[in-house]
Amino acid sequence: MYRCEALGRQLGCTVSVKLETANPVRSFKARGTELVASLLTEQGRTAVVCASAGNLGQALGWSGRRRGLSVTVVASRRAPVAKLDRIRALGAELELVDGDFEMARERAANIARQRGIRLVEDSLDVETCEGAATIGLELAGEEATFDAVLIALGGGAMATGVGYVLKTMVPGTEVICVQPTGAPALTRSWHERRVVTTESTDTIADGVAGRYPIPAVLDDLLTVADDAVLVHESSIIAGMRLLLEHTGLVVEPSAALGVAAVLEDRDRFAGRHVVSVICGSNVDLDAYHRWVYR
Amino acid sequence: MYRCEALGRQLGCTVSVKLETANPVRSFKARGTELVASLLTEQGRTAVVCASAGNLGQALGWSGRRRGLSVTVVASRRAPVAKLDRIRALGAELELVDGDFEMARERAANIARQRGIRLVEDSLDVETCEGAATIGLELAGEEATFDAVLIALGGGAMATGVGYVLKTMVPGTEVICVQPTGAPALTRSWHERRVVTTESTDTIADGVAGRYPIPAVLDDLLTVADDAVLVHESSIIAGMRLLLEHTGLVVEPSAALGVAAVLEDRDRFAGRHVVSVICGSNVDLDAYHRWVYR
Repeated sequence: MYRCEALGRQLGCTVSVKLETANPVRSFKARGTELVASLLTEQGRTAVVCASAGNLGQALGWSGRRRGLSVTVVASRRAPVAKLDRIRALGAELELVDGDFEMARERAANIARQRGIRLVEDSLDVETCEGAATIGLELAGEEATFDAVLIALGGGAMATGVGYVLKTMVPGTEVICVQPTGAPALTRSWHERRVVTTESTDTIADGVAGRYPIPAVLDDLLTVADDAVLVHESSIIAGMRLLLEHTGLVVEPSAALGVAAVLEDRDRFAGRHVVSVICGSNVDLDAYHRWVYR
Repeated sequence: MYRCEALGRQLGCTVSVKLETANPVRSFKARGTELVASLLTEQGRTAVVCASAGNLGQALGWSGRRRGLSVTVVASRRAPVAKLDRIRALGAELELVDGDFEMARERAANIARQRGIRLVEDSLDVETCEGAATIGLELAGEEATFDAVLIALGGGAMATGVGYVLKTMVPGTEVICVQPTGAPALTRSWHERRVVTTESTDTIADGVAGRYPIPAVLDDLLTVADDAVLVHESSIIAGMRLLLEHTGLVVEPSAALGVAAVLEDRDRFAGRHVVSVICGSNVDLDAYHRWVYR
């Protein structure tokens, strides 16, 4: 984590970047898969399957390969090519479905049943939340002079994991979840305090585009999140551009949700110290350039 | 530091990235200026001046401001606008000269004499080398399974600092300095074992474009470097492109010298484990895009 003054000047507040892309899988997801894979190894298990929007699959592939686990990843055929290629490059068996992430989840559950192997369910399985929670431990271990932490909201593992730690260790810190208007299911659920699903998603932030919130995750999120906000696609793109210009980081759309949230509500954050978790950089460069330089 | 398999596949070897851009000044230079500025503060000094290609000035501005030091930076008018803007934004007094970096060095020395303030001479002043040497400590503190470390060679602070630590702690590691063919003075000096100067420089790697090697630095470099190689501009650009694609990092040309060196001599590095120090990301984005996407 480090302060980025140039970004702060643009946003009218103090901004710290918690960087989660400078690692072999270019996202925070290996924090959880390292835990899952090491537990599976202890248990003598040899195979594991997960559904993935693209980042969990890379992380599980990486953690599994290091331990000789056979890893199967189910993903949507529409996931970014960069993510699918990188899952394959890590030696995982990749199965593509013709639907979205929710269909991949269904298929992964079927594979787990058929083969009798462990299904890793992102956000539901506590290891995935505990892995993300180590981000919170690192934040709380700093001098923790920040007022708010902005967390991309997908399935909820990062928000519940980081949020739980912050609410325990530095309860005065505001935990704010950010989701795109085009994939608002969990945010709406949080506001209505009941599971709300959507028919479809429409966002470039592929990493957070779920439609069926998990009830147990919503329960946790209601306990640890102070707010959940939605941001427009144009703000996500503006956030990606600001991160490029002022940090030199090419990030995937989900990683720009925090900056987008500040852009959409400058008054709320004016003069405060916010942390934005830059959670992934697995993006198709062609698409990135279409978005950022159009 | 982390392994980057995708980059390694492209280069035919194992590649670890030692990332020195994820910090408030986007280069490794604050490692040295933190030391300089804290010593000056202990001594009750209130002002300091340096010549800078652009990164040292930002770092000294940042370290000085934190301690209430008055910082003057002398730079070439031809330095990247991003670097000059960022020096000013940190509150330093910026004086521009109409020549190159060597003229800035002369002017900074004059200012120090006139004002009776400390001149920070990059690479000559041992604090700048000791600061960079902490990169070496971090590398040697890892399991140190790498075979070679590729270091951008400018004035020599990073090469002598990191090189000294590696030769002391992990002497089997090859220390390889990399400079552009368009700014070869120190590399030629190393090979001829005497100071060789050049009339001019011609490279996009503005951060390493010196013409007058410092004799004492050359002496140190002869002790700690195993090799010094020159790379072409096209390889630097190819290196920047590979780093963009495979790590998501927008780097300045000097930071791509290591990757360029592997590209130009694949056989030498085939199958080995190399560390490339990614030393800076202060680059004008317009120029970056002209280079990388032309």
